[in-house]
Order: sequence, then structure tokens, then C-alpha cells
Amino acid sequence: MNGLWLENLSLSFRGDLPVPELKSGEALVRVRLAGVCSTDLELLRGYYPFRGIPGHEFVGEVIAVAPGIEAAPWMKGRVVGEINLACGQCDTCRRGHPTHCEARRVLGILNQDGAFAEYLVLPIENLHRVPETVSDEQAVFTEPLAAALEIQQQVHIQPTDRVLVIGAGRLGQLISQTLALTACNLQVVARHSFQVELLNTRGIAVIDQDRVPQGKMDVVIEATGSPGGYQLARRAVRPRGTLVLKSTYKDEVSINLSSIVVDEITLVGSRCGPFPPALHLLEMNKVDPTALIQKAFALANGVDALREAARPGMLKILLRP
Amino acid sequence: MNGLWLENLSLSFRGDLPVPELKSGEALVRVRLAGVCSTDLELLRGYYPFRGIPGHEFVGEVIAVAPGIEAAPWMKGRVVGEINLACGQCDTCRRGHPTHCEARRVLGILNQDGAFAEYLVLPIENLHRVPETVSDEQAVFTEPLAAALEIQQQVHIQPTDRVLVIGAGRLGQLISQTLALTACNLQVVARHSFQVELLNTRGIAVIDQDRVPQGKMDVVIEATGSPGGYQLARRAVRPRGTLVLKSTYKDEVSINLSSIVVDEITLVGSRCGPFPPALHLLEMNKVDPTALIQKAFALANGVDALREAARPGMLKILLRP
Repeated sequence: MNGLWLENLSLSFRGDLPVPELKSGEALVRVRLAGVCSTDLELLRGYYPFRGIPGHEFVGEVIAVAPGIEAAPWMKGRVVGEINLACGQCDTCRRGHPTHCEARRVLGILNQDGAFAEYLVLPIENLHRVPETVSDEQAVFTEPLAAALEIQQQVHIQPTDRVLVIGAGRLGQLISQTLALTACNLQVVARHSFQVELLNTRGIAVIDQDRVPQGKMDVVIEATGSPGGYQLARRAVRPRGTLVLKSTYKDEVSINLSSIVVDEITLVGSRCGPFPPALHLLEMNKVDPTALIQKAFALANGVDALREAARPGMLKILLRP
Repeated sequence: MNGLWLENLSLSFRGDLPVPELKSGEALVRVRLAGVCSTDLELLRGYYPFRGIPGHEFVGEVIAVAPGIEAAPWMKGRVVGEINLACGQCDTCRRGHPTHCEARRVLGILNQDGAFAEYLVLPIENLHRVPETVSDEQAVFTEPLAAALEIQQQVHIQPTDRVLVIGAGRLGQLISQTLALTACNLQVVARHSFQVELLNTRGIAVIDQDRVPQGKMDVVIEATGSPGGYQLARRAVRPRGTLVLKSTYKDEVSINLSSIVVDEITLVGSRCGPFPPALHLLEMNKVDPTALIQKAFALANGVDALREAARPGMLKILLRP
């Protein structure tokens, strides 16, 4: 099959990749549309030593299931898929945290070929049916939208809270759209004119980085995708406030932990989120991720697509196998 | 009056200090007993540029109150005092966080002379009466015991939680004693034989630093008082677990924030806590801080006292004016 292949930090298009083998409990999915995420770009920079087919945001259709799985319910309509493949046996799985499984594989990120290809396999329990009224262009955002909702899964956002989102890129836009639904007092630090325009369109307030008041925000979301975002977030959050970390990158950050103690700040790391409420928001048209789409590439031009996605300020780039 | 004086990182005993002036809303307190805390030692190392009388753990008796305060209720019995002097006017005070007042002074730490002297002043609202059955030697621990309870004020400790306290010094001992009351599965990393002995006496499990399992603890408390404790705490906490930071020191720490995101760890900075429940625990004899006392010095020997308190593994040193 056709697909993108990452090896030694080098990405290439290949036409000779084997269609992935269907194992027990799994479904074979034909990818209809895939999205490029900052994590894909970080993999290319060596954030994690992945060798294989990258890509974890997709919408597709099931074309085969492993023996023992009832095929009929899966053979019509489309699916999206949770990206963490859990063992179900380890201490962490048994305690109800399968996305943190100690032996997990992660679609297109860790020991599992991903979505930048014609086909992928996932365990059937990872799949969610896409409502008919949700387009492919909406559904491909289910995974990052779920990641945005993870913030509200972890932190109680009160309607009276002053909330700051730092970074209005791919994930920051979705976070801003979901947080705006809470009726909180939301402001977003955005750098690029197209990012600002999208937020303005939805009536979300944009604030210049230099005008962020110090120590006033109840909740700050760091979604810049780079180490520099932390210090601004730290300055903005009030004593006893909450700082949600959404960025992953290669570098460490030097932190004054004593000031975290003195101001009794809570830092919350936040990663993958729940798919059903993300699909529900899409079905109800409460968010509009499609406004983030800047270009769709054919899979054969995938190397160009990822280069395009890495340009500063770029929002969503799609790949169509 | 007699007292210790800190200036340019140098501590001296002085007999010529003025008795502090009583201002509106304040009480003049004769110090009966004061305790040396790690923060006092950090001030000597330049953690914060304080000039004045250090010391913030004390038990004393009110000998005068400012005009307009009814004196009688304060003139019998003893008091302990909360250390943060709040303005009551700022945004943070009005939102109900007076210990984080933007203009706060802090007894013996920030713009307010402290307890290593014969007398101190504090706003009357900072004072709490000490129950008659609580000795001076117990009462002098009210402030650090409240700081230990702040953990449970911020984090829900469940009886089934696996909890690790790293550091069994002055604060670590009190934290361990209070957490043991929750019936959680508690283990403490202790370095010095006297620290281990105290924990054993109370039936609290001690674990060797090298035997701490990786990524298994639901809640980890970092109370070592030094930057090195963070990495051990980070390794010990499970995905989606909580890491409580209790140490303040001068250095910054280099942190892999991406791993905090991937493992969805919550970091909670924790400082001063509530006095009434601390006094309540003392009154009910549910904790025994007096076991931590290693020596009491006369105020005139205060410089020696702080030197003694700085010795590795040393627990509580008291000063008697």
C-alpha cells in the first residue's frame, strides 16, 4: 500500500508498504482522511524515536474485522479511533487508566503504524462510529478535540473563572472553542493573523502577550508547543490558580519550584481525552474545527504536507490517501 | 529587648532591639517559646533577602492590645499566630485567599519582624488561643503542623491511596504523622537513624530510597527541602498521580514538562495551612510533635541554635527567650 515512512528522522513516501496484518480483536480500517498534528512534527525532530508510519488523527471505514468479531455493525458508516492500544492486564489498566497502560502502543507514535497510509489496524474497542451528519472534515478532528476536552475532564472550569489560553495553533484553537462553551471569561494569546481572525469570528477575545496581567488568571492553558510558553503561563496564573500543560517537546525547562510552593500553584499535565463527547460536540455543531483546515494534500505529497504544516502559524493540514 | 538580628546573611544576638510598636488592630505578644524551621535556615542562605528578626513558629501570651480591641479575652491563656499579614483590600484578599495577599508581610520572613525575640506584634485576627491542655512544647508546632495539614486541604487523600513522603525532617515528620491518620497506605523515605526511629515508634513504614517502586504511588509528597527530591518524587508517582511540593530553596530545577503532560501528572505547590484543625489535633493528642524536639536554647545562644538546626538530619531546635 501507499504510505509515509519515518526512519532516522527522515520521512519518505513509499508505495511498497505491506497492508497491516489483522490480529485478534482488531479491525482493518481504510483511511479516508488524516490530519497532521504537532506531535507528528515533533517526531520528525526526534521528540520520540519512532520508526514506522506516523499519523494518529484519522477518519476511515472498517473493511475487515478479525475472526470472532461480529462484522455487520462495523461494515456501514465511518469510524474514528482512540490512539492508545492498552494491554488491559497491567496495574494501570486494571486501575482504570488504559490511556496510561504501562505496555501501551500508540498509533503512529509508539510501536504501532499510523494513519498516514491507505490502511491501518486498531483494536475494535478503540473505534467509535461517526454520526452520519458529521463530515469527514469534521470527524478527522475528533482526536485533537477529545484532547482539548481532556482539560475539562481534569479541571473544573467555573463560569466565573478568568481563563487564559496561550497559543492559538492547531490545538489551541480547539481548546479555545471548547472552553468558550463553558461561559468562562476567556482570553487567548495568538501570534498569527489567521489565528486571530478565526478566534474573532467566534467572538473569542484575543489578548496581546505583552498585555497579559500578572498573577490574575484562575486557569492558564499552555498550548504553545514550545518551552517558551511556560514562563508566560507561570506569570499569568494567580496564587492558588491552575496551570494546564498541553505542550510536548524535546527540551527540559528550568523551573522555580519554590515559587510554585509559595503561590500554591497547581500544574496539571493533560494529554488524550474522551472521544464520545468530542463526537457529540461535532454532531451538535457546537464547535467548528473545519475552519482550521488550510490545505489537503494527496498522500503521495505527504512529505510536502508535513513541511507545510511546520510553517509558523500554520493550522490544519490534511492528507487524503 | 533581646533578639536575633539577620542582616546581609549574617545572624547576631542583640540586646538593644526596640520592643515592636503596637499599631491599629494589633496585639503585642511576649514569646514563650519559638521553633527553628528550614525556612529560617534558607533565609540565612539568601533564599529571600530578609533584614530583621527572623522566626515564625512561636507560642506566646498577649500583653497588650491596640486601642479599640477588647483586651480581656486575650489577657489570659496563650496564643499562637498565623504568619501572613494580609491587607484585606487587594483582589486576592477579596477573593478569599489572604495567605496569598499581594501586599502581604510574613512574620520573620518578609517585612515583619519575627519570633526570635522577646516580643512580637501581629494583627489580632492572626491569633488563635491555645487550649489549656496543650503544652508550650506542643503549641510551638502549630504553624508547621498547619502547613502539613494544608496538603489535605488541597488534595483528597483516599484511604486506599499509596502515598509516599520523601524527606523525614522537621516538616516531613509532621506530614507523615498527619497523613498516617487518613489510613492511607503510607511509606516514608528517611535518611537519618533518629528520623527512622521516630517513624517506627508511630508504626509508620519507612522505605529505602533505592527501593521505591517506579510509577506506582498515587500521591507523592516532596519534603526534602532540596532540589534533589523532585526527581525521586517524579519517578515514584504513577500516571495521573499527584505530586505535592512542600520544599522551598534557592535553586531552580530542570524539569521535563513533556513527561508531565504524557503521564498527566498533577503538581501541587503547598505552603501555609489552617491553624484551628492543627490545634485540634494537638488537643486530641492525635499527633506528637514533641518527639521531634532535640534541644532548647536560650535566646542569647540563638546563633548557636540555628547552626545546630542546620546540621544534617537535625529535627526541631527550640529557642526560649
